[in-house]
Amino acid sequence: MLTRIDHIGIACHDLDATVEFYRATYGFEVFHSEVNEEQGVREAMLKINETSDGGASYLQLLEPTREDSAVGKWLAKNGEGVHHIAFGTADVDADSEEIRGKGVRVLYQEPRIGSMGSRITFLHPKDCHGVLTELVTSAPVESTEH
Amino acid sequence: MLTRIDHIGIACHDLDATVEFYRATYGFEVFHSEVNEEQGVREAMLKINETSDGGASYLQLLEPTREDSAVGKWLAKNGEGVHHIAFGTADVDADSEEIRGKGVRVLYQEPRIGSMGSRITFLHPKDCHGVLTELVTSAPVESTEH
Repeated sequence: MLTRIDHIGIACHDLDATVEFYRATYGFEVFHSEVNEEQGVREAMLKINETSDGGASYLQLLEPTREDSAVGKWLAKNGEGVHHIAFGTADVDADSEEIRGKGVRVLYQEPRIGSMGSRITFLHPKDCHGVLTELVTSAPVESTEH
Repeated sequence: MLTRIDHIGIACHDLDATVEFYRATYGFEVFHSEVNEEQGVREAMLKINETSDGGASYLQLLEPTREDSAVGKWLAKNGEGVHHIAFGTADVDADSEEIRGKGVRVLYQEPRIGSMGSRITFLHPKDCHGVLTELVTSAPVESTEH
């Protein structure tokens, strides 16, 4: 079950300049940044609010690390803007299988690793009224019990 | 101060079909629907989660009521997809003036009426790295005091 807007993925040419725009204009700060070589992106996560399911909503700013990555090709065609939206779920495996069973194309056979150790998959935008849609299960929070 | 992702605005050709896609695929239900003649849209708000500032995050599905509306022209050019993103604030007037003072073009001189009686304005996408960005202050909740 999808229980939050996890993030909005925004493609940009220059991650540092875009991070600085969001900081200077709105006061949003970088919560996390990483390079995902498999996805071919450098990214910054800006945490905007916490959510009623115990998670949070972020802006995910994405700069391609190579022109032939999915985001690189998308940017060359569309220019900067919203690349995808992502819903959070406690069980991306079950939800993606259920959605696949409804005839929506799920782009990965098995979920892959996304931001901050999450597990993610994507739904084909042509099956989602033009919206590239990601499903995300956050990495488990490390227990503080001893 | 912007304290939440208020909504993601998604343009579609057929509101009823798109509402049905989100219901059948994810179980999202319509929380509110209305026609905004000034904006030239029929819209449905799907509430996804509540947020830590006391508000909520929605998907806003938008069908143009006329081809020459902003959303109608955008759809003709781009096809279905994410049209804008919106951040929630307690004071759209103060925030839009502050942001205008930073050199970002604010599209309305004064905020106008948006979904569910909110007050809204938009920032020019060319000043926001390609993202049409809305600022929203929700309508006050009616007091239950006597």
